Amino acid sequence: MLKVPEHQVAGHQAIDGNLGPLVDDSGRFYKPLQANERGTKELAFYQSLFSDTLVPDHIRRFFPVFYGSQLLEASDGSGLRPHLVLQDLASNHLNPSILDVKMGSRTWYPEASDDYIQRCLEKDRTTTSVSLGFRISGLQIYQSKESGFWKSARKDVLSFTADNVRLVLRKFVSSNSSVGSNAKLDCCFARSVYGGPAGVLEQLLELKTWFEDQTIYHFNSTSLLILFDEESLLKGRTPFAEVKLIDFAHVAEGEGVIDHNFLGGLCSLIKFISEVFSRI
Amino acid sequence: MLKVPEHQVAGHQAIDGNLGPLVDDSGRFYKPLQANERGTKELAFYQSLFSDTLVPDHIRRFFPVFYGSQLLEASDGSGLRPHLVLQDLASNHLNPSILDVKMGSRTWYPEASDDYIQRCLEKDRTTTSVSLGFRISGLQIYQSKESGFWKSARKDVLSFTADNVRLVLRKFVSSNSSVGSNAKLDCCFARSVYGGPAGVLEQLLELKTWFEDQTIYHFNSTSLLILFDEESLLKGRTPFAEVKLIDFAHVAEGEGVIDHNFLGGLCSLIKFISEVFSRI
Repeated sequence: MLKVPEHQVAGHQAIDGNLGPLVDDSGRFYKPLQANERGTKELAFYQSLFSDTLVPDHIRRFFPVFYGSQLLEASDGSGLRPHLVLQDLASNHLNPSILDVKMGSRTWYPEASDDYIQRCLEKDRTTTSVSLGFRISGLQIYQSKESGFWKSARKDVLSFTADNVRLVLRKFVSSNSSVGSNAKLDCCFARSVYGGPAGVLEQLLELKTWFEDQTIYHFNSTSLLILFDEESLLKGRTPFAEVKLIDFAHVAEGEGVIDHNFLGGLCSLIKFISEVFSRI
Repeated sequence: MLKVPEHQVAGHQAIDGNLGPLVDDSGRFYKPLQANERGTKELAFYQSLFSDTLVPDHIRRFFPVFYGSQLLEASDGSGLRPHLVLQDLASNHLNPSILDVKMGSRTWYPEASDDYIQRCLEKDRTTTSVSLGFRISGLQIYQSKESGFWKSARKDVLSFTADNVRLVLRKFVSSNSSVGSNAKLDCCFARSVYGGPAGVLEQLLELKTWFEDQTIYHFNSTSLLILFDEESLLKGRTPFAEVKLIDFAHVAEGEGVIDHNFLGGLCSLIKFISEVFSRI
């Protein structure tokens, strides 16, 4: 039984007759392959990632598990269509809080058309991409059984400033974010979710070490997901907090050069998160 | 007695009646202040750098010493004009080999006009800035008493590919670069100039550590100079190799965000230099 994912915070959604990803109950995520070369590129990326022995195992765990591709009835009713079969990253978590962070100060890839570059550049300049080296492109923050999730409308997310990003990163790890905008955020999960040996910062630093060296891939317009759920955290289940990379339609070959665009944004994100953690 | 610098590898030159920097025999470099806000900004930067207690002393040594500003007869004969009085970085070195590396995959600053941004973007795309996160914008490599310096014409430098950059970084530390293009470069100075406790890599890593944390300045369109001279090296004089930052007309306030654009390019440059060093 395929259904629309409950915890998708960005990207095309399989609602109102649109084409979008589906999930099943066994923890798999079915992402329709885009008909143009984007689909081919994303499939090729996953095939390469899970076969290239140059990618260390401890790095591969930052990506959704890839189960191949499969023909499925598309969510827009357009008939059979190839889908990537991936791990459903949210399926391990009850009521996950999720940040979707599009990485890099530049989201266009060098070989794109001038027109495409100008459109991306415009978006990079009007969001925080150019200034911060990343932009939040979607989020949901679990507040409580009563209030459910706090989500921002897509257009609000795209107009986030640096200060909005700082606030979101504090809200993300606070237990009192539903209390109202005047309450001081308690950041009570910051130490365990951001800090600590299995925390987000440690994972980001591990990724950073890889990005300082790896020249295989350039992750243009890729998102970094940060997920955690309170219940796993409180019950001591692991992983309670995860960092994952998604969206590889514009990945290019590194050709012996590091992905300085992703890396710069990653260092900036690390600095933003360190500041939440250090100001508790 | 002011004269035209012998070892200037990029930027406006005080020749043929043009406006450019001058040097004297006491090791000072006089840079004409540009009449527009660029001049004001560069002066303000130097004043801030040498007074801001947030800048650690071990970082300040990566910048030319700043002696203030002074009214001087301009090199283009246009009369008295304010000049920055700086340390002449080449004056410590006999026959210095010099690389001028313009840092960042983006050389424009966010507040610039659309027109300025488009012109910079075009240059960033047609040089290695976008692909490598930096571009070589000038160089001289000392070859021998007989052959003197190897220099590249400005237009050749701007058309460098990644492979040209790799070759230049090897040539820079080779004693046989004048022998002809078929000779295998010996890279005989690589270990001491790039490696070693006082070498270029160690200095770049020190800068990198600062850039991962500092949110005071964004160094838009700043150059990183790498200088060394054979004689100092062979005679055991220090410093035989130096890393310096120059050109601050477009420095902007960091506003609590790291300079991910410079940092990404710096990590890429470190990777390129490590590869020379590790492939000897």
